[in-house]
Amino acid sequence: MSHIYTHDKSREQFLRAAKVIPSGIYGHQGPAEGCYVPVDAFPLFSQRAQGSYFWDVDGNRYIDYMCAYGPNILGYNDPDVDAAAAAQRKLGDCVTAPNTKMIDFAELLVDTVHCADWAFFAKNGNDVTTLAIMAARAYTHRKKIIFFKGYYHGISPWTQKIDYAGVIEEDVMHNIYVDWNNYEQLAEVFAKHKDEIACVIAQPYMHGNFMDNELPQPDFWQKVRQLCTEHDTVLVIDDVRAGFRLDLAGSDHYFGFEADLICFCKALANGYNVSALCGKNFLKNTISSMSYTGSYWLSAVPFAAGIACIEKMKRLNIPQLLIEKGNILKQGLLDAGSKYGFDLHVSGAPSLFYLRIADDPTLMLHQEWIAECVRRGVFFTNHHNHFINAALSEEDIAQTIAIAEEAFALLRKRHPQE
Amino acid sequence: MSHIYTHDKSREQFLRAAKVIPSGIYGHQGPAEGCYVPVDAFPLFSQRAQGSYFWDVDGNRYIDYMCAYGPNILGYNDPDVDAAAAAQRKLGDCVTAPNTKMIDFAELLVDTVHCADWAFFAKNGNDVTTLAIMAARAYTHRKKIIFFKGYYHGISPWTQKIDYAGVIEEDVMHNIYVDWNNYEQLAEVFAKHKDEIACVIAQPYMHGNFMDNELPQPDFWQKVRQLCTEHDTVLVIDDVRAGFRLDLAGSDHYFGFEADLICFCKALANGYNVSALCGKNFLKNTISSMSYTGSYWLSAVPFAAGIACIEKMKRLNIPQLLIEKGNILKQGLLDAGSKYGFDLHVSGAPSLFYLRIADDPTLMLHQEWIAECVRRGVFFTNHHNHFINAALSEEDIAQTIAIAEEAFALLRKRHPQE
Repeated sequence: MSHIYTHDKSREQFLRAAKVIPSGIYGHQGPAEGCYVPVDAFPLFSQRAQGSYFWDVDGNRYIDYMCAYGPNILGYNDPDVDAAAAAQRKLGDCVTAPNTKMIDFAELLVDTVHCADWAFFAKNGNDVTTLAIMAARAYTHRKKIIFFKGYYHGISPWTQKIDYAGVIEEDVMHNIYVDWNNYEQLAEVFAKHKDEIACVIAQPYMHGNFMDNELPQPDFWQKVRQLCTEHDTVLVIDDVRAGFRLDLAGSDHYFGFEADLICFCKALANGYNVSALCGKNFLKNTISSMSYTGSYWLSAVPFAAGIACIEKMKRLNIPQLLIEKGNILKQGLLDAGSKYGFDLHVSGAPSLFYLRIADDPTLMLHQEWIAECVRRGVFFTNHHNHFINAALSEEDIAQTIAIAEEAFALLRKRHPQE
Repeated sequence: MSHIYTHDKSREQFLRAAKVIPSGIYGHQGPAEGCYVPVDAFPLFSQRAQGSYFWDVDGNRYIDYMCAYGPNILGYNDPDVDAAAAAQRKLGDCVTAPNTKMIDFAELLVDTVHCADWAFFAKNGNDVTTLAIMAARAYTHRKKIIFFKGYYHGISPWTQKIDYAGVIEEDVMHNIYVDWNNYEQLAEVFAKHKDEIACVIAQPYMHGNFMDNELPQPDFWQKVRQLCTEHDTVLVIDDVRAGFRLDLAGSDHYFGFEADLICFCKALANGYNVSALCGKNFLKNTISSMSYTGSYWLSAVPFAAGIACIEKMKRLNIPQLLIEKGNILKQGLLDAGSKYGFDLHVSGAPSLFYLRIADDPTLMLHQEWIAECVRRGVFFTNHHNHFINAALSEEDIAQTIAIAEEAFALLRKRHPQE
């Protein structure tokens, strides 16, 4: 039997945090978002991290399947990436004139990413999704944007929902929402709004929260690509979350089509702070004509880290490695669930798997299972996809499956089959 | 006579950059923005930086008065800030659960910044100006935003101009623009749009580009503050550029009033990548209710750097130190100009001084003078305020004045007085 973790120091620190920080911890890493329920099962503050693990402030170690919500792809504190970053830091980071590491990084992305003729760097995924839709509007002289329901493209007003705090109707009045994988519906929207659609923005597959993740149907992307081309509409792929966990050449390449603009962040530099928009040559002058910058955008340390990260990802063929690890874990979890009569659904790409126990539409059974895994040192969350990193070992996976099985067994004891 | 710098390697690298990066170098650090003319006088890429200097790729050393456009406040590679950051990096930076350094940093800002009851961290100045206006709209249930002409609050659509590429009319249709220091005009706008104005957003004084910088008139801010209070309008101070170079308690405190929300970035962590929104308690729940986050926002290294930076700024009383250095430089530049009959205007705060030779409305004479300073190792730019950092020595200032005088002498030789 596993040792059961408690989180007294996390609770204490959260009370401190709540006094001086709105929500205490905000965003996807905070308890308010709904991925961390029941709250008392989860640690709230980390003390340190290394490889595939992090330790919380109560001294508990977790096998980490969230990877800081994506950035940790090679393992925390990867020695190659950290060495490249440290060497650059000695020379300079945020300096009045940029370092040529920026050019090296752009050249490497152009060599690596299939649709990339150029690269533009910023700091958040949101910076580059916003640049993408502004560029599409500037290039097409049109206003409308098509989204797939279940999307997430950041936190700027244009991409939030009308009922979210701080959003006004003018922010989102040109947004059109269609169902994922429904080509006919999309084609109807194009027919209805001929010459009005600036861009389609989409994740490479539907990896939304609170829903089983859904891969594209065969030929879906090829038909969408053709529709966009026929209507001179810019096709934007938001690869912030999935990027480099499916294909180093871009997730569009993985699914056999070519985006006009593609957005990267997260895994781009193993946690160093950088994002990138890459795109086709026909949009380069448009980007050049725009007023778009930020205080730290040309800092050299994240460029050095990004170069080291991409070179290592190429050397190790990271997407294949992560998919293999994910497949082993997936099979182990399915077997463990089935042993105790639970209908576990594992959806999405294996390197970004989404979990749901399908036996209970209230989600309570699923949340109970996740909580028992977390209390034993496997950091899953309830209603968000997970992330695999390269430091995750066979032993980590075996231990994860053993703990998952223990949690299933406990659940079955509490909820006997009729 | 000074050695005259050339920039062959910068040109070579720029040709490389232009192939794979839109504009080659974009934003305020790029030659396209208009601050770097004549382009051939300026270096485009740096090789390293230390203290008050950076070296370009041709090996030229510059006394740097742009400070990476603000972030460098203590000197490049400050040993105390870098040591705190390196210690945190060994433990972890971007981790699934945040580090308690986030709480320490928030508590320190609440202790330091006069109007701060809480702090919220992000990555760009733009992240926090956008959060501020969204929070004001959410709190007031109003749409209109008042700006002062000449403002810069980032690059989100809501804050760009209607004629900028990628901006649509709906982005800016609730924006109202008034003249800086014109209280009567502001009061008229409030009277006309009663119960419609969500917020006033403003820099603490007018430090816009291509204009002499202008401090607030006596009582201007006190009257604006009162007007906002009477109309339940949120007063947002954008202290991204001026922050910590006037007053560690906030530039609102320097000018004797209290903002409802204040935005920091740049000098907050001496170049480490973090921004902050601080504000009053009555807006804390509104911020908590918003959906606002990003991939690297809870990373611990910039928090550790920010703590070390603020503690050192307090220890050294940095604003006073920078204002003193700025005043010595200002007097030296004025004397040097006047010796050769040039009417140099030095405006704004001495720690953020703006330069203009007033003898020539075409600006060509000014650009010629700046170019001759840059060619001799003093990095000024043409139409943007400058920044003083704490590593700038008496010798640096003396050398700067000597070079400025040499440039004035050359200018007078080329353009004899009639």
